[in-house]
Amino acid sequence: MLLLARTAFRLIHRSPLHPTRSASLILSAHTRRTHTMSPDPDAIQLEIEQQKARFNDLRKQGAAQELVDEAKKSLGDLQRALALAKGGAAGKDAGKKRERLMLKTAKGTRDYSPAEMYCREHIERIVKDCFTAYGGSCLDTPVFERKDILQGKYGEDAKLIFDLMDQGGEQLALRYDHTVPLARYLAMVGANNTHSKLWQVGKVYRRDNPVMSKGRMREFLQADFDISGTWDPMIPDAELLSLLCTIMTKLDVGEFTVKVNHRKILDGIFEVCGVPAEKIRSISSAVDKLDKLPWVEVKKEMTDEKGLDAAIADKIGEYVKHKGGPELLEKLNADAALTANKSAKNGLNEMGILFTLLNAYKVLDKISFDLSLARGLDYYTGIIYEAIVEASAPPGFTEANALAAADGTAAPAPAPKKSKKPKAADGEEEEVDESQVGVGSIAAGGRYDGLVGMFNAAAAAEGKKAHELPCVGVSIGMDRVFAIVWPKWVEKGMRSKETMAYVVSMGDGLLKERVQLVQELREAGIKTDFLAKNKPKHQAQFAASEKDEVPFAIIIAPEELAAGFVRVKEQKWQFVDGEKVKVKTEGDKGTQVRREELVGWLKQTTTLAGWSSGKLVEN
Amino acid sequence: MLLLARTAFRLIHRSPLHPTRSASLILSAHTRRTHTMSPDPDAIQLEIEQQKARFNDLRKQGAAQELVDEAKKSLGDLQRALALAKGGAAGKDAGKKRERLMLKTAKGTRDYSPAEMYCREHIERIVKDCFTAYGGSCLDTPVFERKDILQGKYGEDAKLIFDLMDQGGEQLALRYDHTVPLARYLAMVGANNTHSKLWQVGKVYRRDNPVMSKGRMREFLQADFDISGTWDPMIPDAELLSLLCTIMTKLDVGEFTVKVNHRKILDGIFEVCGVPAEKIRSISSAVDKLDKLPWVEVKKEMTDEKGLDAAIADKIGEYVKHKGGPELLEKLNADAALTANKSAKNGLNEMGILFTLLNAYKVLDKISFDLSLARGLDYYTGIIYEAIVEASAPPGFTEANALAAADGTAAPAPAPKKSKKPKAADGEEEEVDESQVGVGSIAAGGRYDGLVGMFNAAAAAEGKKAHELPCVGVSIGMDRVFAIVWPKWVEKGMRSKETMAYVVSMGDGLLKERVQLVQELREAGIKTDFLAKNKPKHQAQFAASEKDEVPFAIIIAPEELAAGFVRVKEQKWQFVDGEKVKVKTEGDKGTQVRREELVGWLKQTTTLAGWSSGKLVEN
Repeated sequence: MLLLARTAFRLIHRSPLHPTRSASLILSAHTRRTHTMSPDPDAIQLEIEQQKARFNDLRKQGAAQELVDEAKKSLGDLQRALALAKGGAAGKDAGKKRERLMLKTAKGTRDYSPAEMYCREHIERIVKDCFTAYGGSCLDTPVFERKDILQGKYGEDAKLIFDLMDQGGEQLALRYDHTVPLARYLAMVGANNTHSKLWQVGKVYRRDNPVMSKGRMREFLQADFDISGTWDPMIPDAELLSLLCTIMTKLDVGEFTVKVNHRKILDGIFEVCGVPAEKIRSISSAVDKLDKLPWVEVKKEMTDEKGLDAAIADKIGEYVKHKGGPELLEKLNADAALTANKSAKNGLNEMGILFTLLNAYKVLDKISFDLSLARGLDYYTGIIYEAIVEASAPPGFTEANALAAADGTAAPAPAPKKSKKPKAADGEEEEVDESQVGVGSIAAGGRYDGLVGMFNAAAAAEGKKAHELPCVGVSIGMDRVFAIVWPKWVEKGMRSKETMAYVVSMGDGLLKERVQLVQELREAGIKTDFLAKNKPKHQAQFAASEKDEVPFAIIIAPEELAAGFVRVKEQKWQFVDGEKVKVKTEGDKGTQVRREELVGWLKQTTTLAGWSSGKLVEN
Repeated sequence: MLLLARTAFRLIHRSPLHPTRSASLILSAHTRRTHTMSPDPDAIQLEIEQQKARFNDLRKQGAAQELVDEAKKSLGDLQRALALAKGGAAGKDAGKKRERLMLKTAKGTRDYSPAEMYCREHIERIVKDCFTAYGGSCLDTPVFERKDILQGKYGEDAKLIFDLMDQGGEQLALRYDHTVPLARYLAMVGANNTHSKLWQVGKVYRRDNPVMSKGRMREFLQADFDISGTWDPMIPDAELLSLLCTIMTKLDVGEFTVKVNHRKILDGIFEVCGVPAEKIRSISSAVDKLDKLPWVEVKKEMTDEKGLDAAIADKIGEYVKHKGGPELLEKLNADAALTANKSAKNGLNEMGILFTLLNAYKVLDKISFDLSLARGLDYYTGIIYEAIVEASAPPGFTEANALAAADGTAAPAPAPKKSKKPKAADGEEEEVDESQVGVGSIAAGGRYDGLVGMFNAAAAAEGKKAHELPCVGVSIGMDRVFAIVWPKWVEKGMRSKETMAYVVSMGDGLLKERVQLVQELREAGIKTDFLAKNKPKHQAQFAASEKDEVPFAIIIAPEELAAGFVRVKEQKWQFVDGEKVKVKTEGDKGTQVRREELVGWLKQTTTLAGWSSGKLVEN
C-alpha cells in the first residue's frame, strides 16, 4: 500500500538509545550490498550526520564510555562506507530487497517537539501582545499565491521560490515573505483601507541552502507588522522602530542594536561620489555586503566586477565607514557637497525628524545610524533597518538541535535537558562568555512606498492613474529568535506543558471518581490530567505527574472521599548541583481539603495565581 | 517589471462603490473587443459572480434605487457578453493592449480581514485552551511532506493532494491532514514517546471543488487532538469525546450532536448479514453515504454497482437505520446472531465501557449511537465519530462572505456590519428560525491503531517486527466553526481590535507628549494608539478612536498637562433600533485624572478589568 522511497542504505536508526546495534548492522548491511547495488553517498552522508549528532549527544549526557566508544566506532564505519561508495561500487540492482520508506521531514524543514513548541508559543504570545499593544490588527493570507503575484518582486532571489506543480488550473507558488501578499491585499482592498496597522504571523518558504542550527530553514516563521497610509513624516517609522525595540527587550534576546540607514541618503552619497545613475542599485548591493566582507573585497567588487572608477569607490568608502547617532547626522548636515544633493538633503531631514521621535520613544540608545546598511531588496524607498543581536545561536542551541540536521532528518529534539549550570539569582547579570558570542540579524524592514502602487499599476486599465499607498514594515525572524531563546529556556529548566493538577487515586482505581474530579477542575479553568488506566498503581500516577512537572497532585482515597475530603500535595522542583530535581517531601502527607472547597483552595495558592507559561516552577 | 496574467477582460472593478461606471465601460470594452480578440468566458463568468455579489451588497445596504438598477443593468450586460463569448467570437489577438495582472488569491483560498481574524483568534484561543486543559502538548510539523509519506494513506482522495513542482531534489506535497504527519512523527520518535496527548492547529490542503460560503476551501485550518499509547479500553476515546463536547459548548455553535459508531460493530453486522469479506470496505463506503442519500439509493449502489445480493442489502438496511443511546446497545446485545460474531461482540463490549465513561463525563446527552455512521477513511479500527451542528452556515454568513467567491476573487470581507436585529437579552434564548437551519459536520475522528505501525513496517528492516502504536484523535474544521460563529459575532456587534485607549491632543499637536503618554500606557499593558500626525484636529483623532471603538479617549491639553492632569472620556456603544451607535455624551467633559495616577485609574475601571476579546462593548 505504501510507495517506498529508494534508498541504498538499509538501516535508519530511529532511536539514539541503540547506537551499538546500529553500528554493527550497518557494516554487515554495507558488506552485503556492495555486491548488488550502488550505495547512495548522500544517504550515507545523512547517516553520518545523524550518527555525529548521536555521538555528541551521548557525550553530552555523560553516557557510559562503552556506549560512547561504540557510537564513535559506528561513525568511523560509516565514514569508511562513504569513501567506498564514492569510490563507485559496481552494479545497479535492487534485487529482491524490499525498498524502505525514509522516515524524515523534507530538506530544510523540521518538526517542533512539544517542549520546543511550548517555548515557541511563549515567544509568539509576547510578539502578538506587542503587536496589539501598538494598535495592530491581524491579517491572514493564503500560504500560496498565484505565481504572477510573486513574480518580479525578488530580483535574483526569485529562483528560491517554491512552485506548486501544475495540476491543471492556476500557476501557484508558496509565499516567499509576508510583504508581497500584504501589498497584494492592500491593492485589492483599495480605497476601503487607506490607513492600517496590520500584523501577520505565519510561515514563509525559500528554496535556500538550510543551516538548521542557526534557524536558517526552507520553511520558517515570520512575524510582520506594517503601517500603511499617508501620515506625517517618520511617525509610523518611529512607531515601528519603537515596536521592534520593545519586542526585542521583552523577548530577552540579550544585547541588541538596530542599525538604521536611509535609502535617500545612500542614493545621495552615490550621486555625490559620482556613481552613474544606472549603477546605483548594483553598487548599493555591493555596499550591503560590508557586514560580511572587508572593505577591500567590497571595493574590488565595485571596481573589478561592476566597473566603477576606483576613485569613486574610495569616496564611497569614506562615507560608508561611518556609524553613530545624532552626532553623525550633524556631521553629514555640515557636509556641503552632500546637503547640496536633493535626495541626500531629503533623507537627512527625515533622519533628523526620526531621531527627535526616537528620543520621545526612549529607544535612541538602541539605534545605530549606519551608512553601510543598504539592504538587498529593490523596493525600499526610505529608511531601512536591521536588528542585530550580540549573542546569536550559541553552542547550547546547536547541541539542543543536533538531531535536527540540515537535511531534515530531524528526529524531534528532546525535552529540555537538565541544565548543568545554575540559574543566576534574580536581578544578577550573568557574565557574557566571549567565546560564545556571535552576530546575527534577527529582524529587518524598511519603507516601501511603491509596492502597492506597482500592483495597482499592473492591474489598472491603460491610462488610468495607479493609486499609491506608502508603507513601512518590519519582519521578525521567529526561528532566529527561537534559536536564541530556546537554550536559555532549557537552561532555566522551563516546563514543557501547563498542566496544573494531576488526580491520583489510592486504593481501588476509582476511575469514575477520578474522571468526575478531573472534569470539575477543568471546568473551573484548572488544567488537569490523570492516568488513563482502570486501576493504576499510585506510583505510576505520581511518576506521570512528575514527568510533566505538575505542581499539584490531588489524591483521592475511598474513605477520605466518602468523608468529603481530598488531599493536595504540592510538588516542587529545584536546582541542586545544576540538576533540576524534585524537592523531597518525605513524610509530607499533603493538605486535607474539603472536596467542594478544592477549586477555591487551589485558586488562592500563589503557585496557581502566579502561574504563567514563562515562569520557572522552582522553590 | 511585473509579469502580467493573461486576461481577455480589460475591466476589473475593484471598488463596489462605482458599479455604474463599470457597467457602461464593460459594454464598450466588449464591443471593441469582439472584433479583435476572443473574450475568455471564464473571465466573464468571474466578473458576473463579482457583479452579483456587488448587486446583492447594494440591495442589502439599502442603496439608492438608481445605483441598484445600474448594477443590475451591468449584470445583464455581462450575461449577454458571456453568451456572445460562448458563441465563439472570431479572432485571436492581443493587439497592442497591455496585459493586466489579476489581483486575486488562488482558487479555493481567501484572505481573512482583520475583523474576521479577530473572531478567528477568539475561536482558536478557546480551542487551544481546551486542548491544554485536557493535558495536551503542541506539535508542529512542516506544511509540506515528502510525497512518499503521504502516498497510500488517502485512497481515492489521493488525487486531491497538492504536489510541489520538482525543482531538483525531493518530491514534495502539501499536507492533506494532520493525522498522517502526526503518525510519521510518532514513528520517528519511536520508543521515546509511547504515550502522548498532542494537539496541532494548522492549515491543510486539498485540491477539491471549493464552496467558500460553507467554509469548504482548498486551504483550511484544522485543529487536531490525538492520544497515543496503550491505555485501558475506551478511556482515551472518552476523553476525546468529552473534549469535543467541551469545545463545541464553549464555542457556542448552538445545538450539536456527536454521532458515534464502532468499526468492529459495523464489520460484525456486515459479516452477520453475509457480506463477503472482500466487499466489506466498499459496502461500508456505501453506508457512509446515508447522511446524504436515502436508503433506496444506497441500496442501489450496494446491489447494482457493488454486486451485493439484495437480500443481504436489506438485512444491512435493518441494522443501519438504528440510532439512539444505551438502550440501542442493550437491544444489540440481545441480538444473538450479532453477539455470536466475535468482531461485533468486541465492539459492543467497548461501546458499553464507553457509555459508562461518557456518563461520568456528563456528555451522554450529546451522543447519538448511530449505526449508519461509517466514515470514509480506511485506517479507522475502533470507534468513529462526527459532530453535527444544527445550524451550519445560515444566510447571514453567506452574505457576509459574498465577496469571497468560490473562485478566490475575494476582496476581503468587510468589517462587521451593523446588525439589523437587536441582541437577545442576557439569558434569553433566541428562537430558532427553521428556514435557516442546515446540517453540517464540523469535527470528526476515530481510533486508528494501525497507522503508526504502517510507517514503522514500511521503514523497518526486513524480518523486523514493526512497532505498533494505538492512537485515537479528533479533527475540528476551524473554517466550518468560523462559518457558524462569525455571523453571530457580527450580529452581536463585536469589536475588531483590542485597543483600549486612544491619546487625543487638544491645541498645538503635542506630538512628543502624546508619544510619551502612549508609550507609558503601552508599557503598563494598556493597548494604546494615537494619530500619526503632527498637528491633527481633535475631531480627526476622536473619529479614529471611534472607528476602532476604543473605550477610553485620553485627552491632553497644554494647560491641564502643565498642571499635571489629563482627561479621560469613556466611549460606549449601544444598539438603538438594531443599529450599533455611540452613546451620546454631549456636555460630558470626561474625568480629570492626575497624569501619574492614570494607569492605576484606568486599571480599576470595570471596563478595563472586565475586558476580554469575546466581550461586547456596550452599555
